[in-house]
Amino acid sequence: MNLVPQQKLVLNENQKVANELRSRFEAHGVYCVNLVSSPGSGKTTLLEKTLAGFDKDARVAVLTGDLQTENDARRLAQYGFPVQQITTGGVCHLDAGMIARALDAWDLDDIDLLLIENVGNLVCPSSYDLGENVRVVLLSVTEGEDKPLKYPATFVKAQLLVLTKSDLLPYVPFDMEAARKNARMVHPEMEVLDVSSMTEAGFEQWRGWLAARIEAFRQQQVSALA
Amino acid sequence: MNLVPQQKLVLNENQKVANELRSRFEAHGVYCVNLVSSPGSGKTTLLEKTLAGFDKDARVAVLTGDLQTENDARRLAQYGFPVQQITTGGVCHLDAGMIARALDAWDLDDIDLLLIENVGNLVCPSSYDLGENVRVVLLSVTEGEDKPLKYPATFVKAQLLVLTKSDLLPYVPFDMEAARKNARMVHPEMEVLDVSSMTEAGFEQWRGWLAARIEAFRQQQVSALA
Repeated sequence: MNLVPQQKLVLNENQKVANELRSRFEAHGVYCVNLVSSPGSGKTTLLEKTLAGFDKDARVAVLTGDLQTENDARRLAQYGFPVQQITTGGVCHLDAGMIARALDAWDLDDIDLLLIENVGNLVCPSSYDLGENVRVVLLSVTEGEDKPLKYPATFVKAQLLVLTKSDLLPYVPFDMEAARKNARMVHPEMEVLDVSSMTEAGFEQWRGWLAARIEAFRQQQVSALA
Repeated sequence: MNLVPQQKLVLNENQKVANELRSRFEAHGVYCVNLVSSPGSGKTTLLEKTLAGFDKDARVAVLTGDLQTENDARRLAQYGFPVQQITTGGVCHLDAGMIARALDAWDLDDIDLLLIENVGNLVCPSSYDLGENVRVVLLSVTEGEDKPLKYPATFVKAQLLVLTKSDLLPYVPFDMEAARKNARMVHPEMEVLDVSSMTEAGFEQWRGWLAARIEAFRQQQVSALA
């Protein structure tokens, strides 16, 4: 992106706050996941099914971003874990300051896993670090396998691509292999999973991926203390 | 949106260029349509089927915007009408200056209908007037019926909502009536059509809507000359 000077200042300020957040997450042992995608790719539904699969005493919290409405927080709150809606009032992405302000309401010592659902937008969130440990991009099989090539910044900055709505594959012209290939063309180390939140196909792999990431984070923390 | 001063300057400058474009379109009898939606809602496929339905001597031209790739221009060029790709290089929307520069390559007297496919983004394009006569927002039935409430600016500024991929209705939890109701909650005068680019269901209505709009524009031009 060609940035005008003021945009650079905004991004520099965001990076400063994101670095502070990352240090806080580290200090309090919080593993943080930033979920990005187009509107309607299934972020909220993936989170609903993910929350439903956790033990009731799991120390999980969710921040969910939207331009308007508290709909997603309402949907996510029913699983018994702390949830906050961040309503951006028209801003096209979450930024680190919004996350920092929302976290004032919580004690980070009570949280092991923080899931952040970004605003539905395959462009702008890519520029804003939220202090997360890992960024996950969702792409539904109804959107077309060319999206990694058209929106490369988002795919370059995510470590995992989750291809969602795989139950719709029989009804849409979507080539899974081409999607994987396109993702790895812009990001050769990209991990790729496919899931259906309707049938829960692929959820064992998704839950396993998340658990392994969290475990690796714990091990790192233990080694750092040793 | 809370705008910082520089963003206001950018939008003011865009509006100036958009007003100039609108005058040029008027002077040359060009009817201009700006198509906006999330990535993967089916803008390019709708345009392909629309172009395929025109007579070979129709005076139609297409500008198609993307962050990267010339894929869409390649897909659209095969119908025999002039097509240009606008690659924004990371910018999340088309602006009026991009349209003006692209039009340098064409004689507006050769064009009756200009179709502009915006960057796939349900947020940022809403702020940028392109000098169009009408703005059309697409929402696919796989995206969820809550989108008009979550992305109100985009739906307020469009005159027509096209609900796409209606062939997938049997396989997705999407309430058409709720989608119409939500669209009219944020924009009471919103016209709504539903189409499938796979089966061409609803295309007679879509083509009829477009033809009626163009005819009304012609009538206005004739009256203005009388």
